[in-house]
Amino acid sequence: MCFLFVKPFELTIIGAGSALPSLERHASSQHLQFGSRHILIDCAEGTQLRLQALKISPMKLDTILISHLHGDHYYGLIGLINSMHLNGRTNPLKIYGPPELINILNLMLKASETHLRYQLLFHALEPIDGQILELDNHLRIISFRVKHRIPAWGFRFDEIVGRKIKKDFIADFQPTHEDLQHIQAGENYTTATGAVLSNETFTYLAHPSRSYAYCTDTAYFETLIEWVFGVNLLYHEATFGKDMDDFAEQTFHSTTVQAAEIARRAEVGKLLIGHFSSRYKNPEVLLNEAKTVFEQTELALDDKKFLI
Amino acid sequence: MCFLFVKPFELTIIGAGSALPSLERHASSQHLQFGSRHILIDCAEGTQLRLQALKISPMKLDTILISHLHGDHYYGLIGLINSMHLNGRTNPLKIYGPPELINILNLMLKASETHLRYQLLFHALEPIDGQILELDNHLRIISFRVKHRIPAWGFRFDEIVGRKIKKDFIADFQPTHEDLQHIQAGENYTTATGAVLSNETFTYLAHPSRSYAYCTDTAYFETLIEWVFGVNLLYHEATFGKDMDDFAEQTFHSTTVQAAEIARRAEVGKLLIGHFSSRYKNPEVLLNEAKTVFEQTELALDDKKFLI
Repeated sequence: MCFLFVKPFELTIIGAGSALPSLERHASSQHLQFGSRHILIDCAEGTQLRLQALKISPMKLDTILISHLHGDHYYGLIGLINSMHLNGRTNPLKIYGPPELINILNLMLKASETHLRYQLLFHALEPIDGQILELDNHLRIISFRVKHRIPAWGFRFDEIVGRKIKKDFIADFQPTHEDLQHIQAGENYTTATGAVLSNETFTYLAHPSRSYAYCTDTAYFETLIEWVFGVNLLYHEATFGKDMDDFAEQTFHSTTVQAAEIARRAEVGKLLIGHFSSRYKNPEVLLNEAKTVFEQTELALDDKKFLI
Repeated sequence: MCFLFVKPFELTIIGAGSALPSLERHASSQHLQFGSRHILIDCAEGTQLRLQALKISPMKLDTILISHLHGDHYYGLIGLINSMHLNGRTNPLKIYGPPELINILNLMLKASETHLRYQLLFHALEPIDGQILELDNHLRIISFRVKHRIPAWGFRFDEIVGRKIKKDFIADFQPTHEDLQHIQAGENYTTATGAVLSNETFTYLAHPSRSYAYCTDTAYFETLIEWVFGVNLLYHEATFGKDMDDFAEQTFHSTTVQAAEIARRAEVGKLLIGHFSSRYKNPEVLLNEAKTVFEQTELALDDKKFLI
């Protein structure tokens, strides 16, 4: 009833530019490793070559999440799918994305008369908040809506941590092997005298649960605070500097201080800002703005890695 | 009735890799400059960033030709279209490609709710040979079918060169201004005695016409000889070395010596080979094979330029 080791949980920024890609800042894509799982979040044009440069094998990817159907978040998906096919992939690939995505992929696969050697397991994102995309003994992934010009979603990843049994409980009650199995399953314990002990009173988390949330292409949207509350690491777009809040609102994007305000109010551990407009050649100025509101902020720049 | 100068006619290899792109050899795209015209031939994923690297402004492009709907020839098109929109393009853009291409583009534009600020003038390639895509006083572009797993086309670009009037004709017949206008329009000349002189007997090409042909993703296909006959520069794919002719036939690609054989029989000026399988880390061996059949062969490598 414990993890023998803490799984690696690491984010790699493949690209965190915005709509107009440049050679310095590629458009949106992130790689999230959690234990043996390899998850891609968004997949802009050129992601497959960026993965090559970062020495991340696409063949290891088990899941790809697409936040919305603006090109700088998914134009690289079909190329990546095709290259994995040509490289002989046979393992199924899960894709979560807006409903229209599967029609686009199917039309392109049909035009090239490509019959994939592996299964695409497509799951449409629903127009609801808190949709549980995945939940097993290790990880929970949920989606929630952000506020953009077209339907767009954010994602939250929570580690599911096993509970250990307190030593004094074992000393006091000497549970049998069968008892332990029930306790491991989260059940309460009934003592010889008939008292019912609640599971969480005699177990404890093996280690603190770690969590990550991804919110891109969204206007300032207070509803997000609930969905990203308390995560260790929050990626929140900050397309514009603080003086451009009118334009940000108009284009359904956020400013630096708006991203930082969400982070502050959601009491996250660390904020990553990205998706900077191509007008900002040096994003340090954006970092400084965000830090005035939330000190624990870093820039999401290409190739950077963050342990969660 | 003459060109006062010879227009620049130059090919730039944006990428000449094959289906699996690499950081060294990007997938297919070429830029053809003819005078003030800027034409893109194929547009693999990442082409917009390659254009940035090569300092070729996409805003200058007037025409894009897509040979077929395998991803390594067009997955970068939608991103390029989108970026030109974001950059404020208003000039129309001509696109020639397989009929299904426009459905794919429209579906993706609809999903992102993008209403382009400029017109896409789409022309479907017909399943015929010798379709005249464009013909004006400067350039003729035709398409012809190549032999691939899915419908695929090659393209030929011929400079239209004006004719000059021979000096002795002017001395002998002293044509009027009106006569000269008729002659410029290609008409014959009737002398005072009623003899009809054929236009080409008293005019000559201001300079030799230059021409380029592009044949990618094709098995060895003798029909091509007619369509590329006599061009100054021929790009012909050579995905495989000569020992892989069975596999080449099976996958509807060509070997080095097959490409060279087409060039030799079509009496072209120079052959460029490209679209090398990713198995060939050093394409020099492919060049040497082709040269045994056609000495005037060069490798189409990223960033290389060729004057036509």
